[in-house]
Amino acid sequence: GRAVVVSRAATMQRSIGVENYVTEVPLTLTRPDLDTPDTMRFRFEKMIREAQNSICAAIEEIDGTKFRQDAWTRKEGGGGITRVIQDGNVWEKAGVNVSVVYGSMPPEAYRAASGNPELMQRIKDAGGSSRVPFFAAGISSVMHPKNPHAPTMHFNYRYFETEEWNGIPGQWWFGGGTDITPNWIVEEDMKHFHGSYKKVCDRHDPAFYPKFKKWCDEYFMISHRGETRGLGGIFFDDLNDRDPSTILAFSTDCVNSVVDAYCPLVTRHKDDAYTEEEKHWQQVRRGRYVEFNLVYDRGTTFGLKTGGRIESILMSMPLTSRWEYDLQPAPGSKEADFIDACKVPRNWV
Amino acid sequence: GRAVVVSRAATMQRSIGVENYVTEVPLTLTRPDLDTPDTMRFRFEKMIREAQNSICAAIEEIDGTKFRQDAWTRKEGGGGITRVIQDGNVWEKAGVNVSVVYGSMPPEAYRAASGNPELMQRIKDAGGSSRVPFFAAGISSVMHPKNPHAPTMHFNYRYFETEEWNGIPGQWWFGGGTDITPNWIVEEDMKHFHGSYKKVCDRHDPAFYPKFKKWCDEYFMISHRGETRGLGGIFFDDLNDRDPSTILAFSTDCVNSVVDAYCPLVTRHKDDAYTEEEKHWQQVRRGRYVEFNLVYDRGTTFGLKTGGRIESILMSMPLTSRWEYDLQPAPGSKEADFIDACKVPRNWV
Repeated sequence: GRAVVVSRAATMQRSIGVENYVTEVPLTLTRPDLDTPDTMRFRFEKMIREAQNSICAAIEEIDGTKFRQDAWTRKEGGGGITRVIQDGNVWEKAGVNVSVVYGSMPPEAYRAASGNPELMQRIKDAGGSSRVPFFAAGISSVMHPKNPHAPTMHFNYRYFETEEWNGIPGQWWFGGGTDITPNWIVEEDMKHFHGSYKKVCDRHDPAFYPKFKKWCDEYFMISHRGETRGLGGIFFDDLNDRDPSTILAFSTDCVNSVVDAYCPLVTRHKDDAYTEEEKHWQQVRRGRYVEFNLVYDRGTTFGLKTGGRIESILMSMPLTSRWEYDLQPAPGSKEADFIDACKVPRNWV
Repeated sequence: GRAVVVSRAATMQRSIGVENYVTEVPLTLTRPDLDTPDTMRFRFEKMIREAQNSICAAIEEIDGTKFRQDAWTRKEGGGGITRVIQDGNVWEKAGVNVSVVYGSMPPEAYRAASGNPELMQRIKDAGGSSRVPFFAAGISSVMHPKNPHAPTMHFNYRYFETEEWNGIPGQWWFGGGTDITPNWIVEEDMKHFHGSYKKVCDRHDPAFYPKFKKWCDEYFMISHRGETRGLGGIFFDDLNDRDPSTILAFSTDCVNSVVDAYCPLVTRHKDDAYTEEEKHWQQVRRGRYVEFNLVYDRGTTFGLKTGGRIESILMSMPLTSRWEYDLQPAPGSKEADFIDACKVPRNWV
């Protein structure tokens, strides 16, 4: 199944380092000397670790299964905490991952990480190959339920800093988002999920929801199919246009709204009856999820190519997935309606 | 499961065009005016279409199922013939695809397609953004059997031409390879498969097998895991160091050896007894296959990003696959031995 043009394998740089597994997670994965409690680096890590605890507690309550935890630190500093439920009662795979990374990266990685066209140009103009000191902390999660009528959900909130480099002052920005991937359209579910995040956004800036909803639809595009991965939510990046504490408050509100926005949909559908055909369709949609994550998702591809912990990055993969040749949903079917909403994103609230 | 750095979605160019499905496949997909029977373009297409027929006939005989055929042409010229067996008796998915593509591509695509460092530098130095006229024809195939003891096999043989561009004379080269992906090591199977291709290579040049065996191990590397996709075979690219007819003869010998090198392994194992654990392991290995194809394979990523026919490109995907969190084979197990051979490629003949 290859096109006719095939060339040499890419040579990859694995730059982040080797993990040391720890049974006792340090109180902070940041640098005690540099990242004092007043810094955003410290405050952001505290926020995401508390969110990991509260979200995992809510999921354990519904699933009736405890998360397995793997925690590690790196000699160069930083570390991570991965929590996974595999083959649970409700979820086939649910993972919540926190990581704190600092070190230095090549200018190309800086450009890719920033995503900001103006900054990207300045980095290019600055030239040179000296590495850029950076700090990054984030929480990310994917949850794939067993029941095909219960949707998959993903969220990721992150904070990024660089130090002064080649005459470019140090930068900081926030990014994140929460998005939903059901297998069919259930209007009231989408109204609840999108409505929840519209409320969160509106509490901080009425311009946020329309802007971040559109950004989400654009980001989660499986370009080769001209279809979104799912039915969206919110997505933002390079957010640094107001006081950092104000954006931290918004990010905190977003991540703390995951449970209320998502879990009612799972509780509502986890015991729905389903047919073998519906299970097949879910598996095919899981395949599309894999396509997006491995081909387009910047977090996944950046992580794989720079030496992130593979098992934490690929925790986002579904437990099982399926690729059927040239599967075309019947016109007028609920599957065709779903694909239509992936081709032309709809407004749910 | 994302790393902390996530940025904007890539914007993709879809440049090849839209397919028109045809029930009668034209005798040639090349340009009757330009690609006369004496040209390598015509001769290569003839060779791969005959190979598609003979290989599919052999597979149908073993599987007891007929291939479904989808054929298409493009307004801009060229076209393809995709043949697929899905959920057959022996194979869960077997596809054999022929395509002929011509048109023009951006200089970046030329560089990526050539893979030849010297030529890549000349293209870079030539500068300019004018598009490069090219012709490409290829046959590609992936076959995933149902029985976990029967190996997956992939082959791809292709011929590429460019016209004079920006002072760089027109180029031509051949590429290709056949490789095997079992789920465990069966020494006599590997001796048969690699031995078959060593014999083919030795008939043409005794330097070929060692060189192309090593190239195969390097190309099919899942870099983020430091493991090959499978147990190798042969792989070559940019082959233009001798008379084109001589290389055509070698390519023809390679593609015509697929059935004898591969099918005996399937016939031997298609009815082997297997446990549920063995089926699970097969599914996990299928997941690794997906990782390689979607993250690294140049043919797949080039095809997806330039508007190739999605269903033909992703015909290489297994019907089903599985990702388990942090699966570690038991030390001393046959699974651990297999992974070891993926980490440090072995010689089989």
